[in-house]
Amino acid sequence: MLPIIAISIGDVNGISPEIILKSFDRSELFEFCRPVVYGPSVPLEYYRQLLGVAVEISEIAHPADAVEGVLSIMPIPGTFDPTDIGRPTAESGRISIAAIEAGFAAVKSGAASALVTAPISKEAIALAGSPFRGHTDMLAALSGSGEEVLMILSSNTMNVGLVTIHVPLAEVTPLITRERVERTIRLGHRSMDLDFGIEDPKIAVLALNPHGGDGGLMGGEEQAVLAPAIAAMQADGIDVEGPFPADGFFSAHSKQMYDLIIAMYHDQGLIPFKLQAKGRGVNVSAGLPIVRTSPDHGTAYNIASHGIASAESMKEAVYYARTIALNRLQ
Amino acid sequence: MLPIIAISIGDVNGISPEIILKSFDRSELFEFCRPVVYGPSVPLEYYRQLLGVAVEISEIAHPADAVEGVLSIMPIPGTFDPTDIGRPTAESGRISIAAIEAGFAAVKSGAASALVTAPISKEAIALAGSPFRGHTDMLAALSGSGEEVLMILSSNTMNVGLVTIHVPLAEVTPLITRERVERTIRLGHRSMDLDFGIEDPKIAVLALNPHGGDGGLMGGEEQAVLAPAIAAMQADGIDVEGPFPADGFFSAHSKQMYDLIIAMYHDQGLIPFKLQAKGRGVNVSAGLPIVRTSPDHGTAYNIASHGIASAESMKEAVYYARTIALNRLQ
Repeated sequence: MLPIIAISIGDVNGISPEIILKSFDRSELFEFCRPVVYGPSVPLEYYRQLLGVAVEISEIAHPADAVEGVLSIMPIPGTFDPTDIGRPTAESGRISIAAIEAGFAAVKSGAASALVTAPISKEAIALAGSPFRGHTDMLAALSGSGEEVLMILSSNTMNVGLVTIHVPLAEVTPLITRERVERTIRLGHRSMDLDFGIEDPKIAVLALNPHGGDGGLMGGEEQAVLAPAIAAMQADGIDVEGPFPADGFFSAHSKQMYDLIIAMYHDQGLIPFKLQAKGRGVNVSAGLPIVRTSPDHGTAYNIASHGIASAESMKEAVYYARTIALNRLQ
Repeated sequence: MLPIIAISIGDVNGISPEIILKSFDRSELFEFCRPVVYGPSVPLEYYRQLLGVAVEISEIAHPADAVEGVLSIMPIPGTFDPTDIGRPTAESGRISIAAIEAGFAAVKSGAASALVTAPISKEAIALAGSPFRGHTDMLAALSGSGEEVLMILSSNTMNVGLVTIHVPLAEVTPLITRERVERTIRLGHRSMDLDFGIEDPKIAVLALNPHGGDGGLMGGEEQAVLAPAIAAMQADGIDVEGPFPADGFFSAHSKQMYDLIIAMYHDQGLIPFKLQAKGRGVNVSAGLPIVRTSPDHGTAYNIASHGIASAESMKEAVYYARTIALNRLQ
C-alpha cells in the first residue's frame, strides 16, 4: 500500500484549497501516496466545481480507509463562506488550527507517514485566539521541541537553513550567538543525514556582515561568533566551512559544493533561494518528531479564487514529505 | 575621434593589470573608445608578456595623444615587484591612489570623457596612509560631493541602488532614515535619466524587514520611514513604488517592470544582483560630477598572476563608461 500523507487544509479563504486540488489534478502524485486532507469538505468541493478539477474527493472516517487515486478527506467541522474569500476570519483561523492539530496527531500516532501543511494566515489564527505566529512554532509546541526546530528551504538546486527567521532586521545581530549557530549547524547536519539521506553532508555557513565583515572593519561577529562556532562543530566531526561573504557565494560555483547553506537571516537566505527555486521551493521542518513539509509561499489572498495560483510548490511539498518519510524509515 | 576613457590601474598586486590588458585583447572595445591607463607601465608590460596578450601598449604625455587601437599609458611613477603579487603593500596602495587622482583630474578637466577604476585594496591604501575606505568616498571627496554619491550596480537585467553599503548589519536599521531614503530615490531617479538615458524611470523600493515587516509584526520601518518617503517622492513626481518584501521581489516578474531597484543594505541588493549579473556587473557612481564606473569585484589577490581572472566585468565597465558619457552629453 502507498504511504498515507496527511495534508492540513490551511486557510480556506486563501489559495490553499485550490493548490491542494490542483496538486492532484491528473497527477502522478497518486502513484506515490494516498493523500488525506484534514479540513472541511465544503471548500474543496466548492473549488473542485469552480475550477473544474478532475479529482475524486471522498470523506473517510480513518486515514487507513484512504484508497489510492482518491483525494480522501478527514472532515473537520467548520463553515466556509465564499464571500469571505480573500481575507482572514476567526473561522478560517480556527479551521486552520484544528486541521494542523488533527494532521499532527495522525502522523504522531503512526496513522499517516508525514504532514504537509497548506498555507495559513497569521492574522486569521490570531483572530481565532492562537498565541502562535505560524506553523513552525505551533508544531514545535505540539511536539515539545521548543527551539530545536530548524526551517530548511529545499529545492533541486540548494538547501538553505536559517539561524533567525521572523524577526526585524534590527534584532538579527544580537540573536547570532554561538549557541544558536551551533544548534543550527547540528540540526541541519542531522536533517541532511536523517531526512535527506545524505551521509556526511557538507555544510556552508554564510557571514552576517557585508564582505564577511572585511576582517572586522564592517562587523565583528564573523570572528567573535561564527568562526569559533564553525571550529567547534568541525571538532565534533561535522564537515562545515565558512563564514563565506554572502553576496558572492550564490553566484560562485561554491554553492554547488554544499549540501546545506546556513544563512543568518530571512532575506539573506530567501532572496537567493526563491530566485533559484523558481516557484518550486519546499519548506522542511527539521528537528520535529514528525515529518513535515509545506510550500514556500503564503495564502496569497489577493489571487484566491482567481484560478491562477500555482500548485508547483505544493506538489513538491508532497513529494518531499513522502521521500523524507521513506528516508527516516531507513 | 573616439572618446578617451581614463582607466586607473588599481592595485598592481591584484588582478587589476591583468583584467585591463585582457579587456583590450583583440577587443571590439577599441572600436568604441581610446583607452588611457593611469599607472606605471611595468606591471602592464609584465602581464602582457606573462599572459601573451595581443595588445599594443604605449606611453603618452597627454591623454589627447592617445591613438585608436592602442592601450595608451599615462605613466605614474611607482615600483612593481612581482614577489609582492597577491598581497597589499604601501607602494601598491600609493600607486592606486595616485592613479585615481590623476584619472579623476583628467576627466574633471575634460581631457578624458569618463573614468573606469580597476579594483583597489582597502588594506593597501590604508598602508599608504589614506583615510578613505574605497573608491566611492575618495571620489566623493575629490569632487566635494559628500553623501550625494550613490552606488548603482548595473547589468543587462537590473539596476540596483543601495541606501547603505559598507556598514555592519547591526548598524543598517538606524541608518534607514527618511532623509537618506529620499536622497537615494532622488539620486537614483536623476542618474537613470541623466546617465542611463531613461526618461521618467520606474523605481522600486525594497522593504527592510522580512515580509516587509508584515504589517508591523516584524519591524516598523516600512510604515514609519519607507512608506512616507515613497509618498513624498511620488508627490514630487517621481514614479516610485514600494516597499516590496525583498525575498519574493527578485523571483517575481515585477523586477522587470522597474528601471531601478533600491535596496536597503549591501547583501540585500548584492546577492540577487550578482546571481543575475553572472560576472558582468558594473558599478556606476551616480551623483559625481564626472562619469565613473568600475567592475563589481575586488582585487582577487588569491588568483593574481594565475591568468584565470575574468575580464568580463571590466569590459562592461568600459562600455558603460562610454555609454554614460554619451548620455550625459545629450
